[in-house]
Amino acid sequence: MTTSETTSSPVSVTAAILVIGDEILSGRTKDKNIGYIAEYLTNIGIELREVRIVPDVEGEIVAALNALRHRYTYVFTTGGIGPTHDDITADSVAAAFGVSIDHDPRAIAMLAERFPPDQLNEARLRMARIPAGADLIANSVSKAPGFKIGNVHVMAGVPSIMQAMLDVVAPTLQTGVKILSDTVRAGLREGDIGTALAEVAKAHPDVSIGSYPFFSETGPDTNVVVRSRDPEALAAAMAAVKAMIAAEQAKLGA
Amino acid sequence: MTTSETTSSPVSVTAAILVIGDEILSGRTKDKNIGYIAEYLTNIGIELREVRIVPDVEGEIVAALNALRHRYTYVFTTGGIGPTHDDITADSVAAAFGVSIDHDPRAIAMLAERFPPDQLNEARLRMARIPAGADLIANSVSKAPGFKIGNVHVMAGVPSIMQAMLDVVAPTLQTGVKILSDTVRAGLREGDIGTALAEVAKAHPDVSIGSYPFFSETGPDTNVVVRSRDPEALAAAMAAVKAMIAAEQAKLGA
Repeated sequence: MTTSETTSSPVSVTAAILVIGDEILSGRTKDKNIGYIAEYLTNIGIELREVRIVPDVEGEIVAALNALRHRYTYVFTTGGIGPTHDDITADSVAAAFGVSIDHDPRAIAMLAERFPPDQLNEARLRMARIPAGADLIANSVSKAPGFKIGNVHVMAGVPSIMQAMLDVVAPTLQTGVKILSDTVRAGLREGDIGTALAEVAKAHPDVSIGSYPFFSETGPDTNVVVRSRDPEALAAAMAAVKAMIAAEQAKLGA
Repeated sequence: MTTSETTSSPVSVTAAILVIGDEILSGRTKDKNIGYIAEYLTNIGIELREVRIVPDVEGEIVAALNALRHRYTYVFTTGGIGPTHDDITADSVAAAFGVSIDHDPRAIAMLAERFPPDQLNEARLRMARIPAGADLIANSVSKAPGFKIGNVHVMAGVPSIMQAMLDVVAPTLQTGVKILSDTVRAGLREGDIGTALAEVAKAHPDVSIGSYPFFSETGPDTNVVVRSRDPEALAAAMAAVKAMIAAEQAKLGA
């Protein structure tokens, strides 16, 4: 696996996640990977821009992967790389890239660390099917590797394995300038501050301001989140948000 | 809102979910709606076929919505219909359908049930902006309605409100023949049964067989899930899966 060497970081490095699996779409399994990867990428300075969840159908996987990989710096897939007949991610990725796929001696060697020869059966050897030209992603949990081809990182669906793979992948990724964020709890309903918040947002076009309502023990409340790559712009906008909230609280006697 | 009257149910009714929100992509908020809607739709006989998560950017929302609404029977969106400047879902949906959007008297009347005139400010009135030709979806939790236009149901992002809206929407939906499922815990690792499971899957092409590894207190284990609209085909395939598991257990002395 090669690491991109850059003398200066690009401002924006983008990513998409492609979750592959009928079990997520049926609701039988609740995805735990999207939120984890989203937070992880944000923390290392990569902007997650889109997520798709598709079924275990080769045509769907190929179409989604080709839509995403040409549009974002990186794509991370989860799911479908196990030993059973419904694990078709590796074959689908090979099809998307138009390359051949076969049992990879490096992957077989990794599996052999875990499984004695009599257990390295046809099913387990499916996990050594790797598209031509891909680099392997080591898996410290169960040995069956993921792989990287082009800008696409193919990872397991089991959260503990996916997380171990992401730790292996992360140091190889190009990262951008990290988006900083600051949050204030308004102590007011979203509709109480919405009009004034729009004015603050207009006056601070260089930051992104989000408003997130929630129910607390004391009733409806709102978190206001300011995001920016520029710490000074962030601080200035947050100061304006806090001043606005204080003024609205005074008006409403809150 | 009109209910589709049909004398016979179609076999397959399909759906997609479009989650709208920067906060999900940044990882700040962990989505709780996809899994809920997925399970809900499965239970009423609607097949969820695709999910996308996009940021609060009109062009992205419009493109995703137009891709999904032409392809599936229904689309369900969550998020972006609150009172603040970053809530742009209604305007984006109007743009996707090429219709105008304005304050809707019916929506204002709903909001007026909750808010006295002095609280029905500019921000809260944003929540009454509804695309021309849409039907409203009542919201028993906070009164601000969702809406339905064409085959697209626009719902809130706050889970309790989204769930209340889905209960309102569900009786109006056309549903298909429900996909039944049955699960057996193998007591074996996925790779132990993969080869034989592929044979069972081949012999039962009329059902869908999924294999889901997990870590239990006793080590790696596998759930095998058989899904079909036909209860007899389901039972026959499940019997074959169980016989296969028993044979593999005997071989391995498990």
